[in-house]
Amino acid sequence: NVHLGRLWLQSDLKVIGSPVPPSLTWPGVSGGTRDYNPKQMAIREKVFNTVVACFKRHGAETIDTPVFELKETLTGKYGEDSKLIYDLKDQGGELLSLRYDLTVPFARYLAMNKITNIKRYHIAKVYRRDNPSMTRGRYREFYQCDFDIAGQYDAMIPDAECLKIVHEILSELELGDFRIKVNDRRILDGMFAACGVPDDKFRTICSTVDKLDKMSWEDVKNEMVNEKGLSEQAADLIGEFVTVCVSGGRDLAERLLQNPRLSQNKLACSGLSDVKLLFSYLELFQVTDKVVFDLSLARGLDYYTGLIYEAVLTQAGLSGDTLNGAEDSVSVGSVAGGGRYDGLVGMFDPKGRKVPCVGVSFGIERIFTIMEQKAESSADKVRTTEVQVLVASAQKNLLEERLKLVTDLWKAGIKAEVMYKKNPKLLSQLQHCEESGIPLVAILGEQELKDGVVKLRVVATREEVDFSRADLIREIRRRTSEA
Amino acid sequence: NVHLGRLWLQSDLKVIGSPVPPSLTWPGVSGGTRDYNPKQMAIREKVFNTVVACFKRHGAETIDTPVFELKETLTGKYGEDSKLIYDLKDQGGELLSLRYDLTVPFARYLAMNKITNIKRYHIAKVYRRDNPSMTRGRYREFYQCDFDIAGQYDAMIPDAECLKIVHEILSELELGDFRIKVNDRRILDGMFAACGVPDDKFRTICSTVDKLDKMSWEDVKNEMVNEKGLSEQAADLIGEFVTVCVSGGRDLAERLLQNPRLSQNKLACSGLSDVKLLFSYLELFQVTDKVVFDLSLARGLDYYTGLIYEAVLTQAGLSGDTLNGAEDSVSVGSVAGGGRYDGLVGMFDPKGRKVPCVGVSFGIERIFTIMEQKAESSADKVRTTEVQVLVASAQKNLLEERLKLVTDLWKAGIKAEVMYKKNPKLLSQLQHCEESGIPLVAILGEQELKDGVVKLRVVATREEVDFSRADLIREIRRRTSEA
Repeated sequence: NVHLGRLWLQSDLKVIGSPVPPSLTWPGVSGGTRDYNPKQMAIREKVFNTVVACFKRHGAETIDTPVFELKETLTGKYGEDSKLIYDLKDQGGELLSLRYDLTVPFARYLAMNKITNIKRYHIAKVYRRDNPSMTRGRYREFYQCDFDIAGQYDAMIPDAECLKIVHEILSELELGDFRIKVNDRRILDGMFAACGVPDDKFRTICSTVDKLDKMSWEDVKNEMVNEKGLSEQAADLIGEFVTVCVSGGRDLAERLLQNPRLSQNKLACSGLSDVKLLFSYLELFQVTDKVVFDLSLARGLDYYTGLIYEAVLTQAGLSGDTLNGAEDSVSVGSVAGGGRYDGLVGMFDPKGRKVPCVGVSFGIERIFTIMEQKAESSADKVRTTEVQVLVASAQKNLLEERLKLVTDLWKAGIKAEVMYKKNPKLLSQLQHCEESGIPLVAILGEQELKDGVVKLRVVATREEVDFSRADLIREIRRRTSEA
Repeated sequence: NVHLGRLWLQSDLKVIGSPVPPSLTWPGVSGGTRDYNPKQMAIREKVFNTVVACFKRHGAETIDTPVFELKETLTGKYGEDSKLIYDLKDQGGELLSLRYDLTVPFARYLAMNKITNIKRYHIAKVYRRDNPSMTRGRYREFYQCDFDIAGQYDAMIPDAECLKIVHEILSELELGDFRIKVNDRRILDGMFAACGVPDDKFRTICSTVDKLDKMSWEDVKNEMVNEKGLSEQAADLIGEFVTVCVSGGRDLAERLLQNPRLSQNKLACSGLSDVKLLFSYLELFQVTDKVVFDLSLARGLDYYTGLIYEAVLTQAGLSGDTLNGAEDSVSVGSVAGGGRYDGLVGMFDPKGRKVPCVGVSFGIERIFTIMEQKAESSADKVRTTEVQVLVASAQKNLLEERLKLVTDLWKAGIKAEVMYKKNPKLLSQLQHCEESGIPLVAILGEQELKDGVVKLRVVATREEVDFSRADLIREIRRRTSEA
């Protein structure tokens, strides 16, 4: 599959080092990564501001960790996905890998610093040697925005807050309708046991169930039986659960607690009771409109031990109504996911001391892609600078006066610029304002200098009024605080 | 030297993979990198806010580039420092390296997108396999904050603005006194020619001159003559310039224009005339108090073509006075540097089209280290969250009421939290506020619930007043906007 990935890369993306004349492909960026231009950065900043404001509203601190970890820190944490880890070349010293997510570095940080309680967010880039799909917002370098709560607390309270945060952020970003699917690893494991899956196949069958959002049940069953060697009977029993129980709430948890197979299994029962409890907190948090209990949700990563969840954006289906029939809507991709991982920190502690954790990770690139498309179709131009006023001159030989005035404005905290020409034409200075969306121009002219005034022009209305220097600063502040 | 570096590493830092029992060293971070804890992040955020505010005040947009570049993009750009580049392992696909600075990726970005005019900032981490020195704030992964102006403009106007920005940022951060040294590659090259340095030795002699801030003139001369094969006579002539002309202004440029050796050299003369012009703009920008023309400043990187500069923090020397005698003060390290690089973009353009650029890079880690030391010695505790109010309960069985109230507060945009326990003790809730610096507590009790009120307690004064829910939100807003 990695091999397939490479072939795909070579046909769909520029590959440097291939026998194409260098002048045609060079300079470039690595396949699956991208530059952000100023317009994209302006959108990205807006998204980050919304996300960080929510994290701070919920009382989180932030930390940062290095972009590379010791290779052994990442080893054995990601199951089948480990092949996607980027390694650094052995140039002497330690063996290093680029971080694959922010969760494992967080767990390493907690163990290393013996921290048993923290609520933290972390926004940073992670790296996966995956098949990139630029149009769907999937890259080899991408941002994750993580929020996690570590500590020994009463069941489902921090878990519910993570879901509350997903609900708040996706609502505030106005990305359209969404659904948050929840399930629990204990329910999955209990269900596997109840369906006759051998213990040593739990993880690999779980990985296969995780593909249900991209593959049909027939294909998933086929993989279980023919690739992973599960009995057909066990697969069919799993199918009865994961194809039917995909859109419930507290009621579904209650119904499953009565199910003759599951009710025999202790693990499944404790998971189901916790899901019931979770929904009672979600009601208090007023987010049950978007959360569904879905037995087919599995999540790929190895380290989850309890509740798991994933948020998907939905689009009205042909026959559907996104408000009343979430089942009819079409998923356009996961934008956040997470869960409880009570064992991960202990893997990094020399004495195996556990720190229970629950968290959520926003896959923010897909959100950027949607926001960019929205910005493209919007009538409002995205500004990439915040310049409030251009200091311009109406005649030649006024560079010194422009530099003096712009110095005064900077000192007053006003965002201002001058053109870097000795004698720019007034027209080209005004054009620069139009192009950059600068709302005001302070125009210096010989007559104004004699009179001790500066002309302030409003770009949109072409209105012009003379001000003394002191009044000019007041007027700029007044006009730009209005906007 | 790399070898020495490794030895140093092994003795001074934890090296994973060495024959130390894993349980003693594991988990760890790679040598020369570090985690940032919440307190360090709070300080870092403050520094970034100051830096970004200045960049925006000067009208800059921002871009972002991937953390790794194609290896060939970095090849041949850093002279002798190229050995410090981190390479990624060849896992199939392109050969990649971690970025060494933000300047080369910026030039690659301009060429790739055919951009001829931009004023941009970029704040991101860069990577160097250098000997780390944690105490002096030197790491293998560190932030750079870059501001660059690209475009064909009139001489020294954008260059002067870069120095203005250095002056503004270092003043606002209140790091103590500083000096900004300026020189020009054309003056250095002209001086080398005038002193009899062969053309093909310019770059390597320049690298040696660059070490004058860390080595004595005797050692520098020794390296020139014995390692680099320069004649003793040429070295002595260089010494006459670089040990004497280290602290001037426009006057020094004028004096050197009269110097019989330099005045013969066209390159030196154009550099000296531009330094004169630069100082006239710096006077208008009101920054000449900190800027000195220093012929011994060389800067290591290959790509500079004109003006170069470096900002150093200074400490009062034993006999000196930082205000009147900058020469007597002791340099404690460079915190910003930059210069003009008119040829770099052309190296990435298939047709060699040039885009003149000038920029500055802040080595922000050293600034963090100083700010952290200042915070340590300050009486004010650094807060790591912005929580305004804790929703607490005075009796048992009030979890539901707490969750309802905190939901209302979040909806109103108030930063609030609850403790994740069903029945936390009031005392432990109040202690949490003391520890985290949370100023207010909204206390729910059975009597208050009956009366339809919430008790608001001010942590600092222990004052308590009952409010209705609507009034509570108003009161929290009023009290926290005061602070």
